Amino acid sequence: MPYFDAASSAPLHPVARQALQASLDEGWADPARLYREGRRARLLLDAAREAAAEAVGCRPDELTFTPSGTHAVHLGIAGATAGRRRTGSRVVVSAVEHSSVLHAAGESAVTVPVDRHGRVDVAAFVAELAGERGGERVGESVGASTGGVGEGTALACLQSANHEVGTEQPVREVADACRAAGVPLLVDAAQSLGWGPVPEGWSLLTASAHKWGGPAGVGLLAVRKGVRFAPGVPADERESGRSPGFENLPAIVAAAASLRAVRAEAAAEAVRLRGLVDLIRTRVPEVVADVEVVGDPVRRLPHLVTFSCLYVDGEALLHELDRAGFSVSSGSSCTSSTLTPSHVLRAMGVLSEGNVRVSLPPGTAASDVEHFLDVLPTVVSSVRERLGAPASVPASAGAAAGAREALGAGVASGSEAEAASGAEAGGTEVLVLDALGKLCPIPVIELAKVIGDVHIGGVVRVLSDDEAARLDIPAWCAMRGQEYLGEEEVEGWEGGVGYGVRRVV
Amino acid sequence: MPYFDAASSAPLHPVARQALQASLDEGWADPARLYREGRRARLLLDAAREAAAEAVGCRPDELTFTPSGTHAVHLGIAGATAGRRRTGSRVVVSAVEHSSVLHAAGESAVTVPVDRHGRVDVAAFVAELAGERGGERVGESVGASTGGVGEGTALACLQSANHEVGTEQPVREVADACRAAGVPLLVDAAQSLGWGPVPEGWSLLTASAHKWGGPAGVGLLAVRKGVRFAPGVPADERESGRSPGFENLPAIVAAAASLRAVRAEAAAEAVRLRGLVDLIRTRVPEVVADVEVVGDPVRRLPHLVTFSCLYVDGEALLHELDRAGFSVSSGSSCTSSTLTPSHVLRAMGVLSEGNVRVSLPPGTAASDVEHFLDVLPTVVSSVRERLGAPASVPASAGAAAGAREALGAGVASGSEAEAASGAEAGGTEVLVLDALGKLCPIPVIELAKVIGDVHIGGVVRVLSDDEAARLDIPAWCAMRGQEYLGEEEVEGWEGGVGYGVRRVV
Repeated sequence: MPYFDAASSAPLHPVARQALQASLDEGWADPARLYREGRRARLLLDAAREAAAEAVGCRPDELTFTPSGTHAVHLGIAGATAGRRRTGSRVVVSAVEHSSVLHAAGESAVTVPVDRHGRVDVAAFVAELAGERGGERVGESVGASTGGVGEGTALACLQSANHEVGTEQPVREVADACRAAGVPLLVDAAQSLGWGPVPEGWSLLTASAHKWGGPAGVGLLAVRKGVRFAPGVPADERESGRSPGFENLPAIVAAAASLRAVRAEAAAEAVRLRGLVDLIRTRVPEVVADVEVVGDPVRRLPHLVTFSCLYVDGEALLHELDRAGFSVSSGSSCTSSTLTPSHVLRAMGVLSEGNVRVSLPPGTAASDVEHFLDVLPTVVSSVRERLGAPASVPASAGAAAGAREALGAGVASGSEAEAASGAEAGGTEVLVLDALGKLCPIPVIELAKVIGDVHIGGVVRVLSDDEAARLDIPAWCAMRGQEYLGEEEVEGWEGGVGYGVRRVV
Repeated sequence: MPYFDAASSAPLHPVARQALQASLDEGWADPARLYREGRRARLLLDAAREAAAEAVGCRPDELTFTPSGTHAVHLGIAGATAGRRRTGSRVVVSAVEHSSVLHAAGESAVTVPVDRHGRVDVAAFVAELAGERGGERVGESVGASTGGVGEGTALACLQSANHEVGTEQPVREVADACRAAGVPLLVDAAQSLGWGPVPEGWSLLTASAHKWGGPAGVGLLAVRKGVRFAPGVPADERESGRSPGFENLPAIVAAAASLRAVRAEAAAEAVRLRGLVDLIRTRVPEVVADVEVVGDPVRRLPHLVTFSCLYVDGEALLHELDRAGFSVSSGSSCTSSTLTPSHVLRAMGVLSEGNVRVSLPPGTAASDVEHFLDVLPTVVSSVRERLGAPASVPASAGAAAGAREALGAGVASGSEAEAASGAEAGGTEVLVLDALGKLCPIPVIELAKVIGDVHIGGVVRVLSDDEAARLDIPAWCAMRGQEYLGEEEVEGWEGGVGYGVRRVV
């Protein structure tokens, strides 16, 4: 049963399991105690710290073990910002950081936009370091975030690679700019540390063991010597006062051992998985119509690929893929507890409906990926059919054996063409489509169905209160070659927005 | 090799090991995901929560798993005080709470004294709930802590049983008083939860799995429905937003399974260990001279006993016991990184030098305890001899086989008697003993050596800058029947204090 969600949590690496079991006998005592059981625990802890520090590329005394990657991020951001309180409170972050970074930065966050591939804008980042751009500050108006005493930048945060779309960030360039600006840089390396060290220049680094096949319960927080750091937690003598609580020693030992092990296999495995991901990137648009593959095609994690399917309900898609034996995740609004699309897809401005993230664990068999490509077209078709979506022809209809079934549903022509032929020649200039109260992907499906009802040059105004529509209607326009006209508030309906679309083709 | 420090960390229970290993296969995925691996993880998490909640005596949705007992305490205190910000910030705590409680309460802590057994004064606790007593407030002057708007009590904290001396606290009485006063009560049950549920009436409860034989990496925080609680951590969807970070599922499963297992064995094992602890309580003063057994003799944890030995260096004692194969801990100043005696012993006002805590893990063999009692007199004697301590006769010299060797050193008479005989008849009224710069137990040893140099009614003034002297000189007076006169500052020596002792016998 292929598990394709390594970016959420990777299965335990055999070395992690072995180390965990071995250290259950040696590592249960308090490493702060002076008796033999404590000394044994201390030796294990020291050895684990040395191994992990070597993989991170820091000194052992710069490395703190935390209970999770989230804790590492929370502790790192709290400590670094408290250490620079006098300079200011601004935390410059990319718009696509992990939610733990954004939540820890909170109202102090100043977000820097990314391009359509999810890569942060270096020039904008550099400008924000100096407080020159009036960038979007979460907690305050733009004016209040710039200038003034104590309004300087306390910290910058940039992930090494994005967790949803795999795009590698320009860490080295941003690190150079941070050094020049005298601002410490925290790099969240949660997704990449198993694949290799982070480019130099970071001041703080965070990571999470269960992402590389280590056990749950272990995060890493590295803080370079000389970086101002004031722990934001109650006093505790553990882990240099930076991470309170009794050390989870067996898990720490397993985390360090498995990091070393996955690193030894990383170079070869990266090449192999990159090939499988390339196959998905190429083949999915060939065998499934109306798909957008997102994320940087080259500068990306080796094992991760994300695509979105028009006219598809992400939750239904995940459910059908699960039934077919594939475990993947999604940034679609219907799969989130808040019913909003992932902030990453939003920041990129790409389609969010029918979103699928495939992240291959090391050791994934090529045959499993091929099987996924065989199954996907049928699964997408079945979801679309149930939703009454307009049928489309995939980019390369005959390319995949698995695509043949999918094509059975609506092989003759695209729905737009059919609908357009039914449009009245003297139709209204503006057609209002009321999709209020309907959730993703229905508003977009209904838009696709009625676009042919207006003549070329005519406008469809889609009324929707679904957050996903804000992202998906413009994305649909881009994919379909229609013109997106922007949005305006709908009076008398809370959260209601009218999206204008001009028929061009 | 007997390990007698279960109160620090208990060896892994076989059930915990079994559950941990079994759930490594099933419990590595993200329980928030909807695919089969996630659903399996969710089932495990739900089952663990139900089992742990049953043992705690709460509803599953009242129970949060945290990365450690320390985290449970930090999160519980932060959340409960933030939830009652409008009432006030005072946190009423017993003086002998675990350091994690005292550090989390920080400057808001108002400490309630304990008796010589370490049991909190219920009347004083009740008075502090209402802010009536001008009790010692850590961060502010007494006056500022009472009365005024928003100066009410946010929270009360009381451990179920003390971690250093085993004394059970009057939880039920304090809980009743808290309910009457409308103040939530947090009970730190870290030391007792494996032995049985906490008496009812708590609002929040915290515990730590590795104390009951569960794995490291798991704490419990229970918050009763209706208790105001505002998580003091960045937003995170895990654990009802109360404990951020990816769940450490295999450890959580192991923690819950082992709690159930130790509870099943608790009643019988408590009776057995209580017998062994009684043996230590009775025999140690018989076979070792100048020993004070501390902690409540009846209302106490079944497996824990603490005693202090005059004229002994705690670190040397632990070292010698370790060489003899026994792992114990100590609250003596020389074994702490800050060179101050444990705050618990200080609050109790008992001797801190040569302090030994014995806490027996379930399954401890009676023969190991007997062996400990055989070895202890020799070990104490050897440490005393090296320090040049005055020799004493144990209370019941012939009682133990192991005591015979110890007696070889100074069997004839107590050192005081000998020293007194050498005192000048017309000696000075006040003898000044300069022990500045000397660490525990040297000031007390030197006091014992010179007390005979003054006539009865004469005074020895001991100058010392060792924190332990503040506790141990009065304790020595009480044990030796001499009169303690109090302390005064020594000018020209930072931290120097003069302790007055009048020779009575």
